[in-house]
Amino acid sequence: MSEEEEYVDGSPIWDSLDIDLFIKVFSHTAFSPFFVMLIPTFYIFQGAKLTDTIVLASAAYYVFVCSFWAIKWISRLYTNQGNLFYAPRPFEWGEQIVVITGGSSGVGELLANTLAVKSVTVVVLDLKPIQTQNYNIAYYKCDVSKWEEVEAVSKKIIEEIGQPTVLINNAGVVQGKLILDLSPEDVQQTFGVNTLAHFWTLKAFLPGMIEKKKGHIVTMSSVMGTHGVAQMTDYSASKAALINLNRSLRSELDKRYKCPAIRTTLVCPGHIHTPLFATVITSPQFFFPTLHPIDVVKRVIQALDETHSQTIFLPFYAHFMPYLQVLPDWFADFASWASNADFAMKDFIKLSGRRPEEGPAPLVESKEETGNGFKTN
Amino acid sequence: MSEEEEYVDGSPIWDSLDIDLFIKVFSHTAFSPFFVMLIPTFYIFQGAKLTDTIVLASAAYYVFVCSFWAIKWISRLYTNQGNLFYAPRPFEWGEQIVVITGGSSGVGELLANTLAVKSVTVVVLDLKPIQTQNYNIAYYKCDVSKWEEVEAVSKKIIEEIGQPTVLINNAGVVQGKLILDLSPEDVQQTFGVNTLAHFWTLKAFLPGMIEKKKGHIVTMSSVMGTHGVAQMTDYSASKAALINLNRSLRSELDKRYKCPAIRTTLVCPGHIHTPLFATVITSPQFFFPTLHPIDVVKRVIQALDETHSQTIFLPFYAHFMPYLQVLPDWFADFASWASNADFAMKDFIKLSGRRPEEGPAPLVESKEETGNGFKTN
Repeated sequence: MSEEEEYVDGSPIWDSLDIDLFIKVFSHTAFSPFFVMLIPTFYIFQGAKLTDTIVLASAAYYVFVCSFWAIKWISRLYTNQGNLFYAPRPFEWGEQIVVITGGSSGVGELLANTLAVKSVTVVVLDLKPIQTQNYNIAYYKCDVSKWEEVEAVSKKIIEEIGQPTVLINNAGVVQGKLILDLSPEDVQQTFGVNTLAHFWTLKAFLPGMIEKKKGHIVTMSSVMGTHGVAQMTDYSASKAALINLNRSLRSELDKRYKCPAIRTTLVCPGHIHTPLFATVITSPQFFFPTLHPIDVVKRVIQALDETHSQTIFLPFYAHFMPYLQVLPDWFADFASWASNADFAMKDFIKLSGRRPEEGPAPLVESKEETGNGFKTN
Repeated sequence: MSEEEEYVDGSPIWDSLDIDLFIKVFSHTAFSPFFVMLIPTFYIFQGAKLTDTIVLASAAYYVFVCSFWAIKWISRLYTNQGNLFYAPRPFEWGEQIVVITGGSSGVGELLANTLAVKSVTVVVLDLKPIQTQNYNIAYYKCDVSKWEEVEAVSKKIIEEIGQPTVLINNAGVVQGKLILDLSPEDVQQTFGVNTLAHFWTLKAFLPGMIEKKKGHIVTMSSVMGTHGVAQMTDYSASKAALINLNRSLRSELDKRYKCPAIRTTLVCPGHIHTPLFATVITSPQFFFPTLHPIDVVKRVIQALDETHSQTIFLPFYAHFMPYLQVLPDWFADFASWASNADFAMKDFIKLSGRRPEEGPAPLVESKEETGNGFKTN
């Protein structure tokens, strides 16, 4: 309950002043085809000739901006529709059955509540029940890292509710330890929840989608999936696996199962303000802003609505993370230094996904004021 | 035994005619600073003036070639030595204790035999014993996917042989099934052997290296770790995890354990001619040549000898695989089409790493001539 309240507190009323705001403004002004088109037009209206440098230069810039958006758009249509003249049917929210793993806290919880309001039938799989008053949300207790549990629960869901049309693989766990401090159980849990669970839920729910040749699979990876940092050996490895899983799944759906209309969306968010990463030392907020769950939820809902496979990088800096793999090491070192990424987990305390043998989370002094140790910025 | 003979057969006496040969020749001629320097020099000797276009153009090209190699070299020195004037001590082969997981077949076997000849003490961890006459090779039976076995065996190794100075995490397994055909045991095995085993062996052998602030960890990933294709959801995910593990491990060793002299080498080879991938339909050999185990072994030994952390992409096309993640989808689709990657596993039969319940590998008609189903090209 208190977590839910904090989300309400945490949801920003206005955007915070960071690079993402600048990019947002920029893409609606100096990088918007409509806006840029006005520049040469106004000059011509004011009496400039077509051959004047200012008209030619601004027209060239206009062509550049249009090309950028055209390539982006055509790439997406190519990936999703095969040709430009066919469009998928609009997404009927009321007809959807959405399974959300790890749907009882953080991004999953907000997603469940938001979708339920859109009259979607939401099925939450989690270890602890979701606190909600919404009748559209069904909760099934399930440790998604165990195939037996997923298999049993999935049969119940299909029987009691129906074939899920959307699968949101969102459950995740972080240990935040140096490699030698990781216990075997830690490693097993990280890969079980973050990676293997995707295989189990796909095995359980994909056959129903393939039958109808329709559906949407959302894979929650992380910017850490594109680049590893200290104290995240297991986490970043488990999230990297998801990026490749998403890609090979796309290939199989397109070419082997012949189901291009089953969409796959990959989400690579940066640090999100949730219990999972509450005790992280945040990076300089201007370039590496902390996300609010609503930022991620908005983009996921948009992806479902567009019925297009896509990769969502959030916030803006995340777009550049895959480049670190093709640039020399000192770029990556510079990025790690600028974001303080290798020391961000130094005081990390695992609050979320603690196993029984780990006992309850210790109460942290500096975070006591928020009750359950969930830090508010 | 017959496998070993086949490696002898399989080892190429001359390079096959493919893009890698052209690149090799190119880098020793038109892209070699020494060779390129001769061009303007000879023109000047023949009476051309310093200001002639041909002299200026070839000199500019010379500067370009030199810059390319200089940036490459300085990047590597930066990563490994901190400054340009310090060089690590030469690598004493005779003093090394090298642990090789999966050392009884394929690349691991050849690596074990080759290192043993260099009077290295080689320790092989595998399920089946290595067939060898070399006294420098000690074999320990171990299922590296299980922490308990790795823990027990590692204690025995440290007691009986000594602290390993080099760890080559090479064991791997391929299921080659579409995602819905993968049994839970298949997925568990893939991640256990390909990914978790790295955590277990690091947990066992890294403390000894940290104590001495010296060592070398070789991580055997794959080009499939940079990009997923059909029938490889689990494999490519498990190998992607290794790329990020290697990166975060580097960060931890440099910044948290303060052991920059413990080197980390990542190997991303394409298709290798070993039992593991024997039943794969090979890609067009000119652009996507099949490697021989010796190609990989040579580069790993070179990396150990140089005592420099590095990422090894083999063959040449593998260098471009990480770019697929930052290019639009149709690039990746084109690459998949050109290499036939999404259909390469269509007739795949698992010959290597079969679990007891899977029974012996079926004898494949077309491969019967080679006895154990190991296809020779």
